[in-house]
Amino acid sequence: MTPEEFRGAGHELIDWIADFRAGIESLPVRAQVEPGEVRGRFDPKPPSGRDSISTLIDMLESDIVPGVTQVQHPMHFGWFPSNASLASVLGDIASSGIGSLGISWESSPALTEVEEVVCDWMRRLVGLSDAWRGTIHDTASTACLVALLVARERASGLSQNRGGIQELEAPLVVYTSRHAHSSVTKAALLAGYGWDNIRIIECDESMAMKPGALAAAIERDVAAGSVPAAIVATVGTTGTTAMDPIDEIVAIAARRGLFIHVDAAMAGSAMLLPERRHLWEGVEAADSISWNPHKWMGTILDTALFYMRDVELLTRVMSTNPSYLRSSAFGAVTQYRNWGVPLGRRFRALKLLFHLRIDGIDAIRDRIRRDLAHAEWLAGEVSTASEWELVAPLSLQTVCVRHRPDGLERADLDKHTRRWVETINRSGEAYLTAAEIDDGWVARVSIGVETTERHHVERMWELMKRAAAESATAVVRD
Amino acid sequence: MTPEEFRGAGHELIDWIADFRAGIESLPVRAQVEPGEVRGRFDPKPPSGRDSISTLIDMLESDIVPGVTQVQHPMHFGWFPSNASLASVLGDIASSGIGSLGISWESSPALTEVEEVVCDWMRRLVGLSDAWRGTIHDTASTACLVALLVARERASGLSQNRGGIQELEAPLVVYTSRHAHSSVTKAALLAGYGWDNIRIIECDESMAMKPGALAAAIERDVAAGSVPAAIVATVGTTGTTAMDPIDEIVAIAARRGLFIHVDAAMAGSAMLLPERRHLWEGVEAADSISWNPHKWMGTILDTALFYMRDVELLTRVMSTNPSYLRSSAFGAVTQYRNWGVPLGRRFRALKLLFHLRIDGIDAIRDRIRRDLAHAEWLAGEVSTASEWELVAPLSLQTVCVRHRPDGLERADLDKHTRRWVETINRSGEAYLTAAEIDDGWVARVSIGVETTERHHVERMWELMKRAAAESATAVVRD
Repeated sequence: MTPEEFRGAGHELIDWIADFRAGIESLPVRAQVEPGEVRGRFDPKPPSGRDSISTLIDMLESDIVPGVTQVQHPMHFGWFPSNASLASVLGDIASSGIGSLGISWESSPALTEVEEVVCDWMRRLVGLSDAWRGTIHDTASTACLVALLVARERASGLSQNRGGIQELEAPLVVYTSRHAHSSVTKAALLAGYGWDNIRIIECDESMAMKPGALAAAIERDVAAGSVPAAIVATVGTTGTTAMDPIDEIVAIAARRGLFIHVDAAMAGSAMLLPERRHLWEGVEAADSISWNPHKWMGTILDTALFYMRDVELLTRVMSTNPSYLRSSAFGAVTQYRNWGVPLGRRFRALKLLFHLRIDGIDAIRDRIRRDLAHAEWLAGEVSTASEWELVAPLSLQTVCVRHRPDGLERADLDKHTRRWVETINRSGEAYLTAAEIDDGWVARVSIGVETTERHHVERMWELMKRAAAESATAVVRD
Repeated sequence: MTPEEFRGAGHELIDWIADFRAGIESLPVRAQVEPGEVRGRFDPKPPSGRDSISTLIDMLESDIVPGVTQVQHPMHFGWFPSNASLASVLGDIASSGIGSLGISWESSPALTEVEEVVCDWMRRLVGLSDAWRGTIHDTASTACLVALLVARERASGLSQNRGGIQELEAPLVVYTSRHAHSSVTKAALLAGYGWDNIRIIECDESMAMKPGALAAAIERDVAAGSVPAAIVATVGTTGTTAMDPIDEIVAIAARRGLFIHVDAAMAGSAMLLPERRHLWEGVEAADSISWNPHKWMGTILDTALFYMRDVELLTRVMSTNPSYLRSSAFGAVTQYRNWGVPLGRRFRALKLLFHLRIDGIDAIRDRIRRDLAHAEWLAGEVSTASEWELVAPLSLQTVCVRHRPDGLERADLDKHTRRWVETINRSGEAYLTAAEIDDGWVARVSIGVETTERHHVERMWELMKRAAAESATAVVRD
């Protein structure tokens, strides 16, 4: 395809995207397709001819869009927000158009240095000190894996340069809470610690890690001859946005020299607001931090920031330096391939740069404050409505609720919760997530899509009340 | 930013990209900037206001483009091709515009199922049997890490579910060749095997792994009480595109049950041509394969295909299944989060789909054959030119050469090679890579940019002869 052909096709596609985004509210939120239905629309044999952009846009319209759960829809309240702000989409388009290759500083000095600049802007915007240096990973899952690899190597005196973790005498141990994200356990398993060496620390009634239980677990392991290596603490858990007490956890870690990774994938965006930074008090004493602008803040996926204090240690663990990647500038520059797993990287920093400069940080902060106010409103409604309850303290924008109709047996409550959530999701009118916490299933209303206004939240509350009432009748009838 | 604002800005940006690509030949190939120069163009303080798209396009033009080494330039012969075909850029734009979130089948059935369809198309296009199932990772480095994690778990009876690799009695060992990519060693270190348990097998004069040396190393380890776990074989090494003998290696592995990962990151694209598939004869008996359409084939980064035969094993190693990601379709569908490290994924399959359907597979195959012919032409010129030599057999599109002027001391040869390569790179007129192989430095002319025609290769050969002659004079004068 020539640049001139691209110009014409690109204009058609931009128009389609603008129309798609403008009309998204008319689409069902959850994809209304059965397993295999989208696959069945495509020939299993590879295409042999050539198609025009118009044909492909028709395909997007007829075969792709109906199979997409619309997380940009203002009635999407599922999982966490996954905003793909159009300002950041433009940055992504610029990145694709330039077609830069990040494998070394020399392969794209701008890709490297703009990533440094933008990560530093983001550091300042959430109030971290200049002891931190940042990079962009694909997701917080990868960031957590990198953190636990670095922790493993720090605790084992760089065992990878000898026989590896597999030849250690005393096992290394990782600590996290039962409300940490599933990717934490996954990262620990992939890093080789093993299930028997992962301690799932219990939580208090707010679903935050209990520092006393953490300290006791560490001391038990030391007494047993194990080596406490790392703690993963969460600022904003996936279930209920609970806040592990970072200040107490870093104090415990300091006594035994544990590595602390702070997973602020969701709540990092809230740290753009000075008035919320008390929620990660103590974070400066951690070793690494991750947060995902591709969630609430809305810089399109994949934009997961990862900050480290000891970059020398990080790059010792993650480095390679083959001859074909050496360059004359060697030594004076940042080589981001030594900060993570992949060698090659896209020019991801442009997504953040465009987002910040087109939308402006003031508007982004205002929107986050708007969402917090929406959540407070909904939590207020729920807490005063009869037969409804908040099941977790509201710390950010995720409202966790249960409907407990009079006369419903405890044994039927989970069934009821999942039923009314599914009723809403199946309707396509709105979407929310059912999740299992300590004492059973809850409904999570996660507010924060860029286009969600107060009237959408009000409508959601109406839908919840109606679906719950219907389900209650049905459960009683069963 | 509203959809209407996006429409206007998007059109401006598309025009800029079309102009940029049309004019790329007038730019220097290697970025002509010093370390810190791009960074210095940006305010260290985060932006506080809002900018128009025109301002940002001006920034791309004045601050970004001069800092990018232009790998889409027809005179780029460095590293490996990293084509970002404009057809695939359109697919990437569609993906960004839709803003889909891949964390489960339910979060985007189309994202999941189109990835299945497209990976299967690609499997058929390179002649692999239907025993293979595929996914898209970011890079082959990540694919190799996944392969070595799966190999580790297979060899240790899923040790991650117990005490992890760190509690094994007998160490697991990984085998690869000295010409394997640096990411192989990195992956083995990150997976916890440890440097002492990585065997770097020697190579023959074509720089392919010696099967006899591999077999002997495995038997030595068995005799010593170690556990041979995995072999990483390369089809198309980074230095010289050497081909490890897959058929012999799989036979050796079969005797001891080793896991075999085939790294065909570069050469996978050549397997689109039936007449080249003898180069990976035996691949069907491997356990996993990676190849990067984002290299020679030209589907924009990041598009690294990863195929496994035993997907059940893969997903047992890489799985998580928290309540908030369960869905009604659970069990009947593919959950790609259980195929790799990240939880969330972009809609990467659209890049491949658009590329295949807009450009057409016939044109892509023709272009690859064109590049092979260009390389044969250049190799022919080099091999008949006085004072020039081919330093590796030509197997694909990378021509590895040395200029050995009469009277030059062997001790000065490396200096001479690096000097004339740097002369060309510094000029901005073309770019190639100097790399260290067995007996010193060579110049790699890696042909395969989408826009590189025969006259560009002819021009490159002129530049090489001129720069080498100048350097030879200077070295003698030194």
